[in-house]
Amino acid sequence: MANITKKVSWSSRGDESGPAGEETPLLNGSEQSRPLTQMSSGSTKFQIGRLSTVDLEEEITTEEQESARGRPKEIPHNEKLLSLKYESLDYDNNENQLFLEEERRMSFMAFRCVEISRWVICGLIGLLTGLIACFIDIVVEQLAELKYKVIKENIVKFTEAGGLSISLILWVVLNCVFVMLGAIMVAFFEPIAAGSGIPQIKCYLNGVKIPRVVRLKTLLVKVLGVICSVVGGLAVGKEGPMIHSGAVVAAGVSQGRSTSLKRDFKIFEYFRRDTEKRDFVSAGAAAGVSAAFGAPVGGVLFSLEEGASFWNQMLTWRIFFASMISTFTLNFILSIYHNKPGDLSNPGLINFGRFESEVMEYNLYEIPLFMGMGALGGMLGALFNVLNYWLTIFRIRYVHRPCLQVMEAMLVAAVTATVAFIMIYFSTDCQPLGPDHNEEYPLQLFCADGEYNSMATAFFNTPERSVRSLLHNPRGTYNALTLGLFTLTYFFLACWTYGLSVSAGVFIPSLLIGAAWGRLCGILLASTTPNGLTWADPGKYALIGAAAQLGGIVRMTLSLTVIMVEATGNVTYGLPIMLVLMTAKIVGDYFQEGLYDIHIKLQSVPFLHWEAPATSHWLTAREVMSSPVTCLNRIEKVGTIVDILSNTSTNHNGFPVVAQVSVDDEPAKLCGLILRSQLIVLLKHKVFVELARSRLSQRKLQLKDFRDAYPRFPPIQSIHVSQDERECMMDLTEFMNPTPYTVPQETSLPRVFKLFRALGLRHLVVVDDANRVVGLVTRKDLARYHLGKHGLEELQLAQT
Amino acid sequence: MANITKKVSWSSRGDESGPAGEETPLLNGSEQSRPLTQMSSGSTKFQIGRLSTVDLEEEITTEEQESARGRPKEIPHNEKLLSLKYESLDYDNNENQLFLEEERRMSFMAFRCVEISRWVICGLIGLLTGLIACFIDIVVEQLAELKYKVIKENIVKFTEAGGLSISLILWVVLNCVFVMLGAIMVAFFEPIAAGSGIPQIKCYLNGVKIPRVVRLKTLLVKVLGVICSVVGGLAVGKEGPMIHSGAVVAAGVSQGRSTSLKRDFKIFEYFRRDTEKRDFVSAGAAAGVSAAFGAPVGGVLFSLEEGASFWNQMLTWRIFFASMISTFTLNFILSIYHNKPGDLSNPGLINFGRFESEVMEYNLYEIPLFMGMGALGGMLGALFNVLNYWLTIFRIRYVHRPCLQVMEAMLVAAVTATVAFIMIYFSTDCQPLGPDHNEEYPLQLFCADGEYNSMATAFFNTPERSVRSLLHNPRGTYNALTLGLFTLTYFFLACWTYGLSVSAGVFIPSLLIGAAWGRLCGILLASTTPNGLTWADPGKYALIGAAAQLGGIVRMTLSLTVIMVEATGNVTYGLPIMLVLMTAKIVGDYFQEGLYDIHIKLQSVPFLHWEAPATSHWLTAREVMSSPVTCLNRIEKVGTIVDILSNTSTNHNGFPVVAQVSVDDEPAKLCGLILRSQLIVLLKHKVFVELARSRLSQRKLQLKDFRDAYPRFPPIQSIHVSQDERECMMDLTEFMNPTPYTVPQETSLPRVFKLFRALGLRHLVVVDDANRVVGLVTRKDLARYHLGKHGLEELQLAQT
Repeated sequence: MANITKKVSWSSRGDESGPAGEETPLLNGSEQSRPLTQMSSGSTKFQIGRLSTVDLEEEITTEEQESARGRPKEIPHNEKLLSLKYESLDYDNNENQLFLEEERRMSFMAFRCVEISRWVICGLIGLLTGLIACFIDIVVEQLAELKYKVIKENIVKFTEAGGLSISLILWVVLNCVFVMLGAIMVAFFEPIAAGSGIPQIKCYLNGVKIPRVVRLKTLLVKVLGVICSVVGGLAVGKEGPMIHSGAVVAAGVSQGRSTSLKRDFKIFEYFRRDTEKRDFVSAGAAAGVSAAFGAPVGGVLFSLEEGASFWNQMLTWRIFFASMISTFTLNFILSIYHNKPGDLSNPGLINFGRFESEVMEYNLYEIPLFMGMGALGGMLGALFNVLNYWLTIFRIRYVHRPCLQVMEAMLVAAVTATVAFIMIYFSTDCQPLGPDHNEEYPLQLFCADGEYNSMATAFFNTPERSVRSLLHNPRGTYNALTLGLFTLTYFFLACWTYGLSVSAGVFIPSLLIGAAWGRLCGILLASTTPNGLTWADPGKYALIGAAAQLGGIVRMTLSLTVIMVEATGNVTYGLPIMLVLMTAKIVGDYFQEGLYDIHIKLQSVPFLHWEAPATSHWLTAREVMSSPVTCLNRIEKVGTIVDILSNTSTNHNGFPVVAQVSVDDEPAKLCGLILRSQLIVLLKHKVFVELARSRLSQRKLQLKDFRDAYPRFPPIQSIHVSQDERECMMDLTEFMNPTPYTVPQETSLPRVFKLFRALGLRHLVVVDDANRVVGLVTRKDLARYHLGKHGLEELQLAQT
Repeated sequence: MANITKKVSWSSRGDESGPAGEETPLLNGSEQSRPLTQMSSGSTKFQIGRLSTVDLEEEITTEEQESARGRPKEIPHNEKLLSLKYESLDYDNNENQLFLEEERRMSFMAFRCVEISRWVICGLIGLLTGLIACFIDIVVEQLAELKYKVIKENIVKFTEAGGLSISLILWVVLNCVFVMLGAIMVAFFEPIAAGSGIPQIKCYLNGVKIPRVVRLKTLLVKVLGVICSVVGGLAVGKEGPMIHSGAVVAAGVSQGRSTSLKRDFKIFEYFRRDTEKRDFVSAGAAAGVSAAFGAPVGGVLFSLEEGASFWNQMLTWRIFFASMISTFTLNFILSIYHNKPGDLSNPGLINFGRFESEVMEYNLYEIPLFMGMGALGGMLGALFNVLNYWLTIFRIRYVHRPCLQVMEAMLVAAVTATVAFIMIYFSTDCQPLGPDHNEEYPLQLFCADGEYNSMATAFFNTPERSVRSLLHNPRGTYNALTLGLFTLTYFFLACWTYGLSVSAGVFIPSLLIGAAWGRLCGILLASTTPNGLTWADPGKYALIGAAAQLGGIVRMTLSLTVIMVEATGNVTYGLPIMLVLMTAKIVGDYFQEGLYDIHIKLQSVPFLHWEAPATSHWLTAREVMSSPVTCLNRIEKVGTIVDILSNTSTNHNGFPVVAQVSVDDEPAKLCGLILRSQLIVLLKHKVFVELARSRLSQRKLQLKDFRDAYPRFPPIQSIHVSQDERECMMDLTEFMNPTPYTVPQETSLPRVFKLFRALGLRHLVVVDDANRVVGLVTRKDLARYHLGKHGLEELQLAQT
């Protein structure tokens, strides 16, 4: 795998999260008074006996020298690295005294009110997500109609007169303008809004904090961007971005405030913590899926598959409620828009149309055929992913300046239009225009009167319509050559398009490619086998092909099956679709990972999978943990705390509180755990023992103060601590979590992993047999181990 | 709540699990050499400050005296007790040295093989469950057809001649014979097979070991029993038992052996532990739901809702696979049976028929109506549950002998037939027999020629058919009086029937009652409102009523919504069904719990809900735990172990292993945790330090020895330990779990609960700040606390 220099990333616009800067001068009069009992994890070399790992020590040293010299970082980067840049979310309630006091004060009725507001929020999430989906759908439809009408009139005018090149130029220009608008917004204003957003939401639900991912501004750029890219005729869909949009809506609504708007509505303050926010974001993602595919159950399963480690009945039920409201809202408003109020048959942005059971039944002997198509889909998907992987590396290396990104997007738009035009121009596949044709913009071109160009129905259309026509048009609408050429060109176009700096999804292009070659398979089967005409319905094979291709690219499992079944509205196809997706996943995984996973890996995100690698039982917490660990005393000097927090080389976020930190790094008895964010709030409010004594009037710090600071705690550099104050003491007893989860150092990695993952922890303290702190396990320590082709592999940590 | 004497229970035929007998003489030459550091939990009186609890101390003392005298136990019993009889399942792998060695020896390929066999097993589970469903369906259909034909001919013969009482007697006798057969099997051979089995499976998945629940014999009785009860014309369904059947199939297949058959096929030995078995039983239950309702996704959600605490992607995917195979098998075989091979439109035992979107669309203003019906359903459901609760208490008190149970079942059968006959006889609701009527057995009776008795379609039919006809028959098929009378009588019949000693489900009767009053609502709406005829389709309201009534009785949430949606095959009704079920649950919960929960509570099962009660933050592990706790030394005297295990007053199952048990009950440092079952295997194989030295040839104990003994470890009484051997020592180091999960004693109850529930633990060791054992938290300690009407309540533990 190429060892590339990485300069852009999902969050390329200056880290906001956590203490940022090497450049920022320290305000705190730091003197490095005490030798810190820390080591940079980056330079820690783990001895793990039997494990053969690439030794990156040398490179890392270079990197440290560079960053010491204050140069912009250009770090050797490959997918065998884990970035230390990403922080984790904490799905474990910090049960300190303040929290317990608040919970104990709350009456049963208060809990009931909280529960009711959870439901209200989920309803709102569903409603808003549905409305956004409507907005996207209606605007795209209007603009696309306008665009295609203009072009069509132009083509009709020039077909007889000659000079179709003018039509081509018109088409190219129109596309480029839209795509340029979208790309500029994304590249210059909010790079995180690029792509489908699904990898980012996967990471968020997994527990990784991706900066800016759930901001209102991101949502705006995403929504406008997706409209531009779809209208701009790129090989993209508007479904993936809905998931991201839903998640942003959820994060915004549930917190009752917006940083982008700088407004705090003073509501839902109880929910201002990672635990609660994650639950709502799950609901938002589910509502997004539900609006995109009309698949409320699929949405719930998507959220669960990607996120929730601990299944909670009421939570799931709420997520389902949000999904239902979302699909209902979309359906209801679209029914009014289409002048058929009450006809709730458009449950999602894409729907596959109604499959009638009678027409579409399958025979037992077709199942091997389906599975063969699944295998083909897996292989094509892997090819797609490999190509996209190379392309992404190329982009990371060479196309990282916003203006270059915009230009690339425009280039793709131009090429897409040109290729489409050429394909249509040279196509000789003319089909009679039936009385009940459902082509929206039939192009006659060089066909006889009363006929239309079949290639144009695939290219000269929004991708959603093309999918539907491939699935439902009667036998003979497309000839084999048209389908083959279409598959080929669209495959490469879609592959090139994914990863551009525009917001757009890969679901619909995948479905479209798959439906095209699936239909091709159906046609070939019908013509080559006896009785083929009776059973090899091309629509049926198009559906199977679509599932196979999509499964081969994204490798989702359960949720995708349910989404497909719900989108077809016919449970009969459950088993075949499931088998196809399974085959596609198995075959595809043999060659290359799923598309989203590739992009997550290329960002070096410490992503935790469901289980520890199967062969990792011989590793124990002792080998896995970071050690030695920076500990604090129960009553600690302010200066020490400030120094520890200001230490940019480590940037730890959780500190075990011990009975007495010993000078010679001897392990001390664990008393609790305190977070960087809590310390910062304490410093900001100057909760010092001495001040509490002198100023009796001082207001006691409350949980509300921590909530108000959530989730963007100020960096330590912004807090001024005077030299006098550095000598004060801080009593952490009330604020630390007195009962953090611990494991003994002999615990096996799978056991540590299970505890960590099931409870969604951020820090897990490793103790010896006398409850003394010997180490700390964090997400990065666990995510390092993964199962490669040659057994267990270990990723290196790097300060990318 | 009545304080009743309890004599029968789910597992009334002598406890097989665990050390049984007060009567069995101890073989072990016990001398009670050391004062045991134990207390009977039964007599432990917990001091929990603010909590007001009923003091049952006196009764418990009486109970202990009684059992000391060896009398059969007649224990004061009410639902405020938690039984100590039930053991827990352990969903945490016991990672002792043997286990780790085995896992470390396994190569990556071996793990892959294990994974493949998991898939194979799930496929088999689906297949067999589907076959069982087919068998039940076909046999029921054949027998019912025979019965109804005979009776119909008889009625036709006597309608004109007079003397219909002979027909009545024939009907009654036929019903009674069938029901008698079913009741005899259940009452005399396998009482656990009574009812739907859903409460038992809920408990199993929750982690409570219900004896005999997943035996082959139980399955046989269940299958034959359900056939008898349905053919016997009781107000029951065959759907609930499918869930139980699936679970039994799964437990059997996955373990590769059967106790009932006394066969060990020597396969799948890797899966012989609670963790793995639970996963397969989840899959089995899902396959059962899937076969019953044609709802594979609903099945998965049912399993997750009831069981899996930790969501695992691959597991869920396998469960879904089993569900799919199950519904596919059923569908495929039924299509052949119905002579329409390939027509896969019968995905479940019950299907609601196809709802066409056009006919069945709903308007926004109907949603409040639906929710009103939901509230009505909730109230009726609560009434049903209250009546059934009283009835169950009556049965526990008076109807506990098998022959009485059989007689009660026959009485119900006779009354059902009689009532039905009378209703039909006096009904004057005659409807014209259309050309495309889908009544299976239309009864003309006193109607004019070409007409049939409408009441008879509801009563003189299998319940599944009645449901379908209520949902789909065109307007005017039933008149309002017929529906009202039918609802009334069927409500009481169904209520009386549930809890009889026959195997039968409550789903279909609930749906039938609901569909009847729902249709009634539809008819009333149509006749009283303007335009009612255009929108108030009776079939639509029947569906909503059915959902409301079922939701009001069983109070399932997410899974039931999905099951209903899948059974209707139309996603349009998702939102209304969900709102109806929600309303029904909220309204119903106000009055009384769900039917399954009532039955679980009446059995005093220590059932863990999803979360700790909301207002329990002020309780900590210190108050919750059992203490003092019996500890063992790392190297312990055999005599001590035998004495501890033989102590019938405590019957503990897990023992912390400590560095050095002190004489004066001082807490000692935790080294590990060992289970009763492990100690028994060690004793059986005489793994003594002395013997190991003398007999060098002795085979080292392997994990296989523990697996072979799983799950029915012999009681301690069956193991002979000589006086000499009592002086030997046993080294537990290799067999104990060296890294049990622990919590500090200050941990709040919700935190303990979360850890316990998320990881499916059986024992959780409570330690002080120096890692010394101070207590042990088990399922019963956590299940004791529940949220009553007056805040947090504590249940008492009792040796029922």
